[in-house]
Formats: sequence, C-alpha cells, structure tokens
Amino acid sequence: MRELTVDLGERSYPIYIGGGVLGEIAPLFEKHSISKSAPLMIVTDEQVAKYHLRDVLARLEQGGFKPVYKIVPSGEKTKSLEMLQEIVGEALAAGLDRKSAIVALGGGVVGDLAGFVAASYMRGVRFIQIPTTILAHDSSVGGKVAVNHPKAKNIIGAFHQPVMVLYDTDTLRTLPDREIRAGLSEVIKHGLIWDRSFTEWLDAHSGDLLSLHSGALEHALYEGCKVKARVVSEDEREGGLRAILNFGHTIGHAVEAVGGYGELLHGEAISIGMVGAARLSVKRGSPPEVYTETKRILQKFGLPVRLPEHYRLDEIMSAMMHDKKFKEGKMVFILLKELGKVEIRDDISAAEVEEIVQQLKQEE
Amino acid sequence: MRELTVDLGERSYPIYIGGGVLGEIAPLFEKHSISKSAPLMIVTDEQVAKYHLRDVLARLEQGGFKPVYKIVPSGEKTKSLEMLQEIVGEALAAGLDRKSAIVALGGGVVGDLAGFVAASYMRGVRFIQIPTTILAHDSSVGGKVAVNHPKAKNIIGAFHQPVMVLYDTDTLRTLPDREIRAGLSEVIKHGLIWDRSFTEWLDAHSGDLLSLHSGALEHALYEGCKVKARVVSEDEREGGLRAILNFGHTIGHAVEAVGGYGELLHGEAISIGMVGAARLSVKRGSPPEVYTETKRILQKFGLPVRLPEHYRLDEIMSAMMHDKKFKEGKMVFILLKELGKVEIRDDISAAEVEEIVQQLKQEE
Repeated sequence: MRELTVDLGERSYPIYIGGGVLGEIAPLFEKHSISKSAPLMIVTDEQVAKYHLRDVLARLEQGGFKPVYKIVPSGEKTKSLEMLQEIVGEALAAGLDRKSAIVALGGGVVGDLAGFVAASYMRGVRFIQIPTTILAHDSSVGGKVAVNHPKAKNIIGAFHQPVMVLYDTDTLRTLPDREIRAGLSEVIKHGLIWDRSFTEWLDAHSGDLLSLHSGALEHALYEGCKVKARVVSEDEREGGLRAILNFGHTIGHAVEAVGGYGELLHGEAISIGMVGAARLSVKRGSPPEVYTETKRILQKFGLPVRLPEHYRLDEIMSAMMHDKKFKEGKMVFILLKELGKVEIRDDISAAEVEEIVQQLKQEE
Repeated sequence: MRELTVDLGERSYPIYIGGGVLGEIAPLFEKHSISKSAPLMIVTDEQVAKYHLRDVLARLEQGGFKPVYKIVPSGEKTKSLEMLQEIVGEALAAGLDRKSAIVALGGGVVGDLAGFVAASYMRGVRFIQIPTTILAHDSSVGGKVAVNHPKAKNIIGAFHQPVMVLYDTDTLRTLPDREIRAGLSEVIKHGLIWDRSFTEWLDAHSGDLLSLHSGALEHALYEGCKVKARVVSEDEREGGLRAILNFGHTIGHAVEAVGGYGELLHGEAISIGMVGAARLSVKRGSPPEVYTETKRILQKFGLPVRLPEHYRLDEIMSAMMHDKKFKEGKMVFILLKELGKVEIRDDISAAEVEEIVQQLKQEE
C-alpha cells in the first residue's frame, strides 16, 4: 500500500493506493476520526454493490462503525437533483447528522453525486472517496463534485475535498477490457502533460497494464494521482494551472456530447481529443514527435485516435462553443510544448479547430 | 450610508447600510469588480419585484452591467431543489458563466435560495445580498444559504459568503407592521446575547423603530449586523461560538414547526423562545432581571411572549428532538448569564424544557 498527499493546507488529505486497501478500511476510518456514534452512508451503484458492498459493510460494522447504504442506478443519468433529494431523504431517515460521513463507493458518477450530497447535506459533512474504476483515479482526487442539469453536465456542484481516498487496485479486476483501456486514457494524459519519464514508462508497460498486473497498475495509478494531486495543490479552485488537466478535453467533450454519451466512453473521446490537441500543438510550432508519439502510445493501448465518419463537424463545433471552458468566445486550448510539458493558449481560432477536427476523421 | 466589515480573511466583505444605498448600486458593483461583460442574474420574489426590481434593473443597465432577472413565488415553499433547477436553467439560457454574479433582492427566502444557486452554479459564482426586510439583517450576513427538503428545512445548503451586502433601509417602508415587529425580534436578540448598552438603546427607542424613523432604523440595523458580523468572523462554519446566535431558537423553531410555518412569523416564534430561554437561565442561576427585562422589552415591541394554548406540549418536545441543533440526544441551550452575555449549556434535561414550555402558556 502506498500513500500520497494532496497538499491543501488544512484541507490536505491522503490517497491510499494498492491491492487490499479495502481490507484496512476500518483502521483507516478510525485513524481519520470518522465518527462511530453517528451513522455514515455508503453511496454505490448496482454494479459495484454486487461485488464490494457486502464486504465493506461487514468490515465497517466489525470496526464499530454504523454504516447505512444507498444503491443508485448505474450511469450518468443518476447524477441529478432528483437523486440528491432522494439520498438526502434517506440520510435524514437514517439519522445522519453533522458528524456523519458520506462514502462514495464506485466510479466517477457515484463519486460526483455522493460528493455533492456530502458538500450540501447540512451545509457539508465529511466525505470519503473509494474509487473502483481506473478513470476515477482522476475524478476522485481534487474535490470537484457535481450533478447534471437537463441542459448541461456538471453545472450544479461544489469544491468539496474528501477526508481521504481509498484506492484498492483489486477492485479493478472486475472491469471490462474496454473500460480498462478507456480509464488508462486519463493516466496517459497525466503523463503527457507533466512527466515525460512516466510517459515512457507507460509506453514500456502497456502490456502489463492492460492485463492488470498488480505492481504495474499500482505504479501507474500512483504516478497518475501524483500529477493530479500536484496540480490540484497549486490551484484548488480552478483559477489557472488546473486548466492543463483539460488537455484533450475541449474536442473530447464535444465529441462525447455529439455522440450522445455512451457511443464513445469518456476516455475514448478524450483519446481522440488528445490526438487533435497534439496535432494543433505541432501546427503551432511544437516538435512533430508531440503528435506522432501521442498517437502511437494511445494506439498501443488500443484507444481510438480517429473520429468516426458520422460525427458532423457543425455539431462538434457548436458543442464546443457551448462548453463552459470557453472565455468570452475565444477558444482556450491546452497544447503540448513537448512530451510532458503543456502551455495554455487562448488565441485559437474556430477555423483552426475546424481544420483539426476534419483531419481527425483521416487519422490512421 | 454606513459601512461595516465582516472579517473573514480573504473572504471578508462589506455591509453598506442606510437610506438610499440602492441609488449607489452601480458604483458599488463597479467598486467590487462585478463583471460588465458577463450577464448577472437578479433573483427576487413577486412582492419585492413590484416595488424595487425596475429601479434596480435600470440603474444597473445605466451603469453598463448586463442584468437579467428571475421572479420566484413568495414564501418558504420556493426554497426547493425544483426551483434551483429552474433558476439554473434560466441562468444557462441567459449565458451566465463563471464570471457572472447572482444577486438576491428580497428577504430571507430569496437570500437563502439565490445564495445556494450562487454557491452551486458552475461550482460557485459571486453572490450579492440586497436584503429588503428587517429579519434579513440576520440571514443576509454570514454566508449560510440553503434550500429545504420536503422532510426538513435548510437541510441542503452551503456556506457561501457574499461579495457585499447592500442594505437600503428605505426598502423597509413597504413592510407590513407585523413583519416589522417580527423582524425587530432578531435585532433584540443580537442585543441580548452580546451588548447590554445596545439592548438599553433599543428599549429607549422602540417607538422610533416601530414607526420606521430612518436614523433609528439605520442605527439598530448597523448594531444588529455588527453583532452578527463579529460572531461570524470568529466562527465562519458554525464550529462553536456561532451557536449563540441560536438564543431563543431551540424552543422557537419547535413552536414554528408545530404551528405549521405561517401561524406565527419566525420572529414571533423566536420571541416566545427567548422568553423560555430567559426563564431557564434564571432557573440555572442567572439574575431574575434576565427574565423580566427580556420579556418586558419584547412586549414593548408588541411581540408575543406567551405560547398559545392550542400548541401541544408533546408535539413541541418531539419537534425539538428532531432539530439538528441537538448533539447526541443531549439538549443544547443558549442561556443568558446576564443581559448582553450568554453561555452555551449542553446539560439541559428534557424534563426541564418541558416545564419551561408549560410555563410559556401562562406568561402574561
């Protein structure tokens, strides 16, 4: 088990990563003074509940805690104000008070939803993240929590840092292959934007990672979380530096939205977006390997790099215009200066982006 | 116009109090760097809109700002997640972004609701309070914002401090007499818990205040806000000292809930609650004047001090047990040591409270 700290002054917290971390859940809760007198609520989804809920409940009860739980439907639609109201109703009925904690056991959807419950229940209670997907190595660190509005994703939320993140790599064994690859897309992003040697390590260990080799997985997630933790430490509330985490996301989010959330997984859309951003970087003067290497590594992990033919250019451009990451109509893009180093540009024209999106349909 | 600061480090903010403050709204927005390029949204209710919305919109437009507005139904029921979703939908349609501000123009209901929109829209945008009731001198200072759940008041919310509070005492002229008296109840509370000489001043100026004499009103609200600001500065997130603001609220909230919100106004219920708390204080050893003076002053302001006969004791006790202010079944009470000085007690038994509540039906 390895430990990493997200350094945020009095809101600092540890991330525990490794195989078997969940076996230590009761002592870790005790160490971080989670209340044994007040009930705590585990929020999880149907899928994750099947594999892990019984074990987590049993260990907490044995440790003297008072867990209750709420199982929500899997999928993005569950991140709604209606579900928030339902969970709060159950928390009230179970007697959760200001000393209670909310625990997210699951992927990004559960983390975002449970996190916003924790941020707003009685104006904020303690929150613990237990990510069970690779993708959630990203979303579980940094305190960004939210639900969706029918007209916009993640538009109602908060910055609410967890007390700790428990990342048991054994829980990843039940993930389907496609989700593993898509999850590794954000790990690769963390290498590309921050750490060339980690990028090279990922390149050399793609086989081990795709076959879920424990040691490799622990190292990759540790390094990925480390990049995220460093960036968040320097910019908790997304005032500046944190924008670099959006590398690949400007085009990626638009592709995801046009596909209707589901056709491409988030990590797959981001993979295509990173290829586009890398191509744009070279056009703006970065060395050619920025594009060729980015694309080669993503392909090595079995990730898509070409935009499917039926995605309409005008729809992608329009989705991008509505994205909240734009500042007053100007296009903000995160470009790669070189592998492991980014720059934030706010002078990208719509015409340049259109050209890149069209080229994404011709990638081989 | 007088100015007061709520001292919270980098989240410090000013309260501007006086007749005609709203005439200065555009320069004050400019002074505090409210964006002129991003739209801002004024949230107000049907009642307040009639008197003040047109003037506020005109002044902001003349000042180069881009105000849009949302008129919500008056009353506590409007503080719901459904209304939050509706307002967020309109904010999105109007193009509000991260640089936008949300402005609450109205009483406590509008302030709580608009404040929670500001706290959660895009994970937090700037917020301005423009209270238009006397009661809101209390709720508009301190950053506590929330909506209701069908099963509990104010249970979903945040601590989100405003950028500034604009308190134009001229807006109070349209209030009905009963609301003026009820609003002054919380002003009296601020005197009782913190400042004996302010309490004596209130006692001597009840006539001026009830007839809305400008100078008297400005002074009373300035001093009332000053107490609130001092307490909030020392305990932003309700960890300890802030509990003293609940003087009169333990019994008061229960009375309000049993009456079904509406039979007694909040300030009226709190008046009865303060008499109960003062009686309990004397029982626990405070000088008798704590009770006699508290009661006499409240009566001088035309506030109720007797619990109406039809309020059932068992219902009041049960409502109190469910109040989130109780710690593990023990009864926490704010008692008066003397006029202007409180203590927090956590050893009050249910039997003692029952006796007090019964006596409240016999007050004369």
